[in-house]
Amino acid sequence: MPLTFFTPGPAQLYPTFEKHLQTFVTDQLGAISHRSQQYRNLHKFTVDQLRTLLNVPETHAIFFLGSASEAWERILFSCVELESFHLVNGSFSKKFYDYSNALNKYAHKLEKPMGQGFSASEIDVPEYAELIAVTHNETSSGVQMPVSEIHKLKQKNPDKLIAVDMVSAAPYPDLDYSLIDTAFFSVQKAFGLPAGLGVWIVSEKCLAKAQTIKKQYSIGAHNDLPTLWKNALNNETPATPNVMGIYLLGKIAEDFNAIGVQTIRKQTEQKAAAIYKFIDRTAGFTPFVKEKAFRSQTVIVTDIEQPSSDIIKAIKEKGMMIGSGYGEFKNSQLRIANFPATSAEEVEKLLFELGKV
Amino acid sequence: MPLTFFTPGPAQLYPTFEKHLQTFVTDQLGAISHRSQQYRNLHKFTVDQLRTLLNVPETHAIFFLGSASEAWERILFSCVELESFHLVNGSFSKKFYDYSNALNKYAHKLEKPMGQGFSASEIDVPEYAELIAVTHNETSSGVQMPVSEIHKLKQKNPDKLIAVDMVSAAPYPDLDYSLIDTAFFSVQKAFGLPAGLGVWIVSEKCLAKAQTIKKQYSIGAHNDLPTLWKNALNNETPATPNVMGIYLLGKIAEDFNAIGVQTIRKQTEQKAAAIYKFIDRTAGFTPFVKEKAFRSQTVIVTDIEQPSSDIIKAIKEKGMMIGSGYGEFKNSQLRIANFPATSAEEVEKLLFELGKV
Repeated sequence: MPLTFFTPGPAQLYPTFEKHLQTFVTDQLGAISHRSQQYRNLHKFTVDQLRTLLNVPETHAIFFLGSASEAWERILFSCVELESFHLVNGSFSKKFYDYSNALNKYAHKLEKPMGQGFSASEIDVPEYAELIAVTHNETSSGVQMPVSEIHKLKQKNPDKLIAVDMVSAAPYPDLDYSLIDTAFFSVQKAFGLPAGLGVWIVSEKCLAKAQTIKKQYSIGAHNDLPTLWKNALNNETPATPNVMGIYLLGKIAEDFNAIGVQTIRKQTEQKAAAIYKFIDRTAGFTPFVKEKAFRSQTVIVTDIEQPSSDIIKAIKEKGMMIGSGYGEFKNSQLRIANFPATSAEEVEKLLFELGKV
Repeated sequence: MPLTFFTPGPAQLYPTFEKHLQTFVTDQLGAISHRSQQYRNLHKFTVDQLRTLLNVPETHAIFFLGSASEAWERILFSCVELESFHLVNGSFSKKFYDYSNALNKYAHKLEKPMGQGFSASEIDVPEYAELIAVTHNETSSGVQMPVSEIHKLKQKNPDKLIAVDMVSAAPYPDLDYSLIDTAFFSVQKAFGLPAGLGVWIVSEKCLAKAQTIKKQYSIGAHNDLPTLWKNALNNETPATPNVMGIYLLGKIAEDFNAIGVQTIRKQTEQKAAAIYKFIDRTAGFTPFVKEKAFRSQTVIVTDIEQPSSDIIKAIKEKGMMIGSGYGEFKNSQLRIANFPATSAEEVEKLLFELGKV
């Protein structure tokens, strides 16, 4: 019996995945040259679909990397000569900060315990920080920074570049790219695809910054921003790309566009509301994130009284997979992904079974 | 009508690819957690199959990257504190050299025109170079450095690390890993898989070197060698990996092991001999690489009198795709891939049709 995955990534594959994969195979797209017009058309299709879906203006380019983690590194190489600033409240925002140190940049941070969120008003960005690194959705703790707060943060600091990690959320956050300089996500979360592809959205301002930094420091060699940009103008990539991943992403984005991104966002909120309502009302479950404004709509974390392994096992027997807590919370929390691939009916079934354990 | 691809990568998919892909889908492997035992088993299977196929000893780890180009960067970060040395005789060996400059290392090179090869006896490695970068098979020109010459080069320079680019050749070259410190390839060439995965083989000596360099310089942040190594001990990867690519690679490697790598190498040489014999004997075709010892067994390049576009078009009408020349040779050369995915019968059919154009 196939399982339904409510795990936070890799996650449930989107229902149309198999159909698109079959077309990829039948059309022999795995063998085409990445320097052919056929590839350039495929590449442009995916970029165009993402541009529509996420409302990305022509001031920003859209690139394909091996993973979102690679984007952390490329952003730091391209946008930070000396100092970066990071909002840290979980394992993934911490890793972005760690990457900056590993590249011998001076990394500042404002840190809060897991489960807590950030408002723009409480954030003072250090004077010499060139980049503000924000995690829209902390996959480890289920904390979300509201898009309005991210926008306010940039408005308070118009001279800094701002980078938004939306790995486990896109296309949910409705970012305003007249404010956001760079953002990135990976495909194994809300896009319901197998892992192996990161998407990096980058503004002309970041490109200019990279070109300035390059005069004095290395900005990396592989997938460096100016080379990515030059190739993207021709709908190509510097190295041989993950053609399968790029093709499938374009088709899923097209499916999302057919539904409409506003509808997808509304469905996400409705399903999230149902899950939080269940957690609030059910004995043995307590929402980990206390402040409602910071509760993630896409990765929902609950404290539990029973060991997570018992609940995960019982739910698996009913044909569903849910995630354990992260790190120290492995056994005392559950993480439930709420991505477009799982329907309201499937969420209802999950909550029904969770209510019985 | 499906085409047969003799293009040098992306290339013809291996005949068992579709079967393995179907299993991947049916078993829902695209949704499994990369921190689960199920993933660790899958990861270990692929590493073990590659270890057997390529005869990689336990002194060397096997890692998965986004592409072989990423391996260029990671090798330079990990194995070169200040100076590298590159044998350059085409576009891809040149890029390895360019990456070293882009990382602000001091890159030395010994350069020859495209079509010419290197012997160990003529190579003097600069005194302070820490790494010798060798391209076993130059995909742009069809020149191969015989494995025996690569081994001799290391024996002449036992105190230098040596890196072998075997992107468009593995599993053909029978490298002796008691001599070779690091090597890498990608899967869209001789393994007959869609692009999106690079494989990096690295010795404990490289790890020690990376740890030394790290005391003073950045060795990168994403997929840095010590972090890759630590995760690999647990059959995991630092970031979410391309599970589909890793699974498919393991299954193809298993298929190759069932045939036997010696048989695959012999079949490769027999098919290459047939192609070179055709080129030598047919009017309008002249082998680009004059010295037989340097002629690639996996990417065969021929000068042609007709424009390549005419020949490529005529051959496509017969259901086959061949590659044009690279760069300045685009129109005056053909590149014919000779990978395990194309059988002796298919090569015969190609040569029959090429003889008529």
